[in-house]
Amino acid sequence: MKAVFMYAPGDVRVEDAPDPVLQDPTDAIVRVVRSCICGSDLHPYHSMRPSAEGQTMGHEFVGVVEDTGSEVSVIRKGDFVIAPFAWSDGTCEFCREGLQTSCLHGGFWNNGRGVLGGQAEAVRVPLADGTLVAVPGITEDSPLLPSLLTLSDVYGTGWHAARSAGVREGDSVAVIGDGAVGLMAVLAAKQMGAERIVLMGRHKSRTDLGREYGATDVVAERGEEGIAKVRDLAGGLGVRRVLEAVGHMPAYEQALGVVRDGGTIARVGVPQYGDGQIGWPFFGRNLTLTGGPAPARAYIEPLLPGVLDGSVDPGKVFDRAIGIEETPEGYAAMDDREALKVMIRF
Amino acid sequence: MKAVFMYAPGDVRVEDAPDPVLQDPTDAIVRVVRSCICGSDLHPYHSMRPSAEGQTMGHEFVGVVEDTGSEVSVIRKGDFVIAPFAWSDGTCEFCREGLQTSCLHGGFWNNGRGVLGGQAEAVRVPLADGTLVAVPGITEDSPLLPSLLTLSDVYGTGWHAARSAGVREGDSVAVIGDGAVGLMAVLAAKQMGAERIVLMGRHKSRTDLGREYGATDVVAERGEEGIAKVRDLAGGLGVRRVLEAVGHMPAYEQALGVVRDGGTIARVGVPQYGDGQIGWPFFGRNLTLTGGPAPARAYIEPLLPGVLDGSVDPGKVFDRAIGIEETPEGYAAMDDREALKVMIRF
Repeated sequence: MKAVFMYAPGDVRVEDAPDPVLQDPTDAIVRVVRSCICGSDLHPYHSMRPSAEGQTMGHEFVGVVEDTGSEVSVIRKGDFVIAPFAWSDGTCEFCREGLQTSCLHGGFWNNGRGVLGGQAEAVRVPLADGTLVAVPGITEDSPLLPSLLTLSDVYGTGWHAARSAGVREGDSVAVIGDGAVGLMAVLAAKQMGAERIVLMGRHKSRTDLGREYGATDVVAERGEEGIAKVRDLAGGLGVRRVLEAVGHMPAYEQALGVVRDGGTIARVGVPQYGDGQIGWPFFGRNLTLTGGPAPARAYIEPLLPGVLDGSVDPGKVFDRAIGIEETPEGYAAMDDREALKVMIRF
Repeated sequence: MKAVFMYAPGDVRVEDAPDPVLQDPTDAIVRVVRSCICGSDLHPYHSMRPSAEGQTMGHEFVGVVEDTGSEVSVIRKGDFVIAPFAWSDGTCEFCREGLQTSCLHGGFWNNGRGVLGGQAEAVRVPLADGTLVAVPGITEDSPLLPSLLTLSDVYGTGWHAARSAGVREGDSVAVIGDGAVGLMAVLAAKQMGAERIVLMGRHKSRTDLGREYGATDVVAERGEEGIAKVRDLAGGLGVRRVLEAVGHMPAYEQALGVVRDGGTIARVGVPQYGDGQIGWPFFGRNLTLTGGPAPARAYIEPLLPGVLDGSVDPGKVFDRAIGIEETPEGYAAMDDREALKVMIRF
């Protein structure tokens, strides 16, 4: 099969790889129908340590189950399935609470233990019954495929930001970052009833989509100027909830600047730093810092009905579709910000 | 009148000072009946920059109203009152939400604007109607004075830790620090229904009192050993809520070590650091960091009935009572850990 490998910053290749096979009785083999490139894939694209073997890539995909191990009983051959970006057993203490990213027996794609990535024609899925969600009635030519694919990661991640931040009816919210996750955070905040949603971003095509998803205001400025604008929009004292969808230190500083005393910063952008300001300026204002990698698995079922009945259309974040052979160009387009989010069709 | 001044680390003096007078029409003058020394007063006792004028000290007191300004209408001469450790107008957006420490017109004792401290025979209280809580029927010889005094700070602060952490029925909780605030955090967690309350502290007389307040376990070990013990007690995965009542970096590291994935660390010890670990090890586990200076004012009314009817006895944290002339010895006793918390009688 064809699969995507990254060897060094900027060095993405599509290569032949062995077809995945069942290894554990809880595995399933999924033939990928749609996959995509994530904003977080750009981190290694910028800074990975060069590797002679290359690393597999991708953690978002939907597809059709081709084979299942002897202990797989919920998922069946032929099912159309959504795979969240972490695999999990569905039965441990954390999974039962809906924190599947901390599953005691799970893990993340491309993260060792022979579990490879989703930018490939097929994937071995460990703990298939816990990990995958079957969606009856979906065919490979369904117009819903892009929106279903967002349930692998970005829609669930945006939802996690808003949910972790505790967004409620009437709230004021700032979303930092106009990437796909930021836009999904806007959508989630809107669904949770936020009254004012300020999107901080500077790419007009993206912020226009953000307005479609529910942003009431867009602030393109950064730094002190951006902070002052957001605070003004929120009546001078700042916003109650900040959804930080970037992961770089300036975004955290921006969050500290725009949040109201007593408010919450929920991060879903993977932090590219270790330490950050949590001393008196944070403490004295009774701020809360929360968030983390979304337990996307927990959100697939609750978010699925809105996708299926068309009341939301998160799939609009995909503004380019390519074949797997064009994946290197897809990375470059996302890195150059020519594309918001690139879908890979098989 | 007599008042306490600090001039340099370890240099505490009791001196004559002018009697406070009404300055603003919203002021009251309170004759202090009981005051005390706070664990946080030990921070300047260790590290203050020497000052020729000295600084006033103290932010916890109960007393009797001697005089009121022309715009004070709720509080009256002769009222027995509790003063929280921050003064606040009671009417601004933050006060109405119960975050009086962020009051738009308030402040902290000993923090400029001519507002002095509570380790004195009398205090000018700004914004008296917003700040003070009158307690009818209390006389100056009431056996409840120590418990009423804890509502100025430590009981409210312990309560804030448990409330910010979201302690619920059946929770597992670790309390870091066996000072008065840590013990009050134990009491609060118990009142909120925590099932397991592990107190981390190494002073037996204090941890014994902690057991009285509801600690189910005491862990004297620190570092990796202490972390392993707490995690074991909590079934191996860590506790859901950590109440951090110290403020030094090792206490934060301890908190990160004992908390369960998806859990919450609530800090009420004033952080003696600026930056701390909030990168992947924090983010990846979906931890929440919250807390801050307690809006003690918000908690006085709800906590008062339990104090008045004797169902709780937070005043036991005072294990020494002195006159104001002995205050320097009181500081030394707390610094040497000979005394848990020192009350000053007038």
